[in-house]
Amino acid sequence: MSAIDDALKASENHGRGFQSAHLAAQPARKIAIVACMDARLTLEPMLGLKTGDAHIIRNAGGIVTEDVVRSLIISQQLLGTKEVMIINHTDCGMLTFNDEALRAQLVKSTGKLAVAPARFYAFSNLEQNVREQIHKLKSHPWIPRQIAVRGFVYEVRSGRLKEITGSELRRAA
Amino acid sequence: MSAIDDALKASENHGRGFQSAHLAAQPARKIAIVACMDARLTLEPMLGLKTGDAHIIRNAGGIVTEDVVRSLIISQQLLGTKEVMIINHTDCGMLTFNDEALRAQLVKSTGKLAVAPARFYAFSNLEQNVREQIHKLKSHPWIPRQIAVRGFVYEVRSGRLKEITGSELRRAA
Repeated sequence: MSAIDDALKASENHGRGFQSAHLAAQPARKIAIVACMDARLTLEPMLGLKTGDAHIIRNAGGIVTEDVVRSLIISQQLLGTKEVMIINHTDCGMLTFNDEALRAQLVKSTGKLAVAPARFYAFSNLEQNVREQIHKLKSHPWIPRQIAVRGFVYEVRSGRLKEITGSELRRAA
Repeated sequence: MSAIDDALKASENHGRGFQSAHLAAQPARKIAIVACMDARLTLEPMLGLKTGDAHIIRNAGGIVTEDVVRSLIISQQLLGTKEVMIINHTDCGMLTFNDEALRAQLVKSTGKLAVAPARFYAFSNLEQNVREQIHKLKSHPWIPRQIAVRGFVYEVRSGRLKEITGSELRRAA
């Protein structure tokens, strides 16, 4: 049995005990989380959020890509969120490779080229990476100045969250 | 107090009771979920997943964008996942607007143009949208044929998950 079949079976139990039919599309706490896809981050219990409280946007690294900006604009303009919490984490896979080597490996193993993705966004300095993601949002012309944007590192060995302060962009590591 | 401050306070309790320091970066169930950012989707309990089991990738709509392909390539090539579950849902915000109207509203309210995002990916046919996302993955040169890709609609009023079968692409609605 595949992992998808297991998940489907679990979802039947979820449907039977379902009690959240009343929830609205607008996040109750008016917050959007941007975080890494990493399997060790279960965001709702980590952040004390309940179903219906927050938009949750996740990708490899917790990078503010064009797709994340797209999602946040929809979150803010159509569904009323006012704060953004960016979460990267220690021991991230994005610290373990570089874009060109991965691209070369894909071309070699598949024998094919691809137009997209144009970048993989591997990085080498975790705290600096968080600062860059904050800066990308704060400088975007369609993210209003009144939106609070703060960045954090989640420590996968301690379960603790550390805020990254200081918005200055140093030279890329 | 802001929603971010509330989340930080909750995360301190999470850190105190933390018992997941042993988990590996590789998802234990070798599965990646691609789902909408919607606040009503709390994926782990919905799918019977535990912390450490799955990569979770989320954006507005549960769309297979360039960023999602990027994240899945990293998930598969570097961290060993073998299945992809795409989840869209009823009552999605993406069914309520169109790209050009949102773009015009942003230009008017901010007085500024922006290079990106180039598209917002609003859609009008939910099941057809799921089929398109499956097709984008299955036809990507860097997603191996052996990766299982299946698509679903989550019903926010019943808590149930419905599989979308039939891969044929009809003319856009």
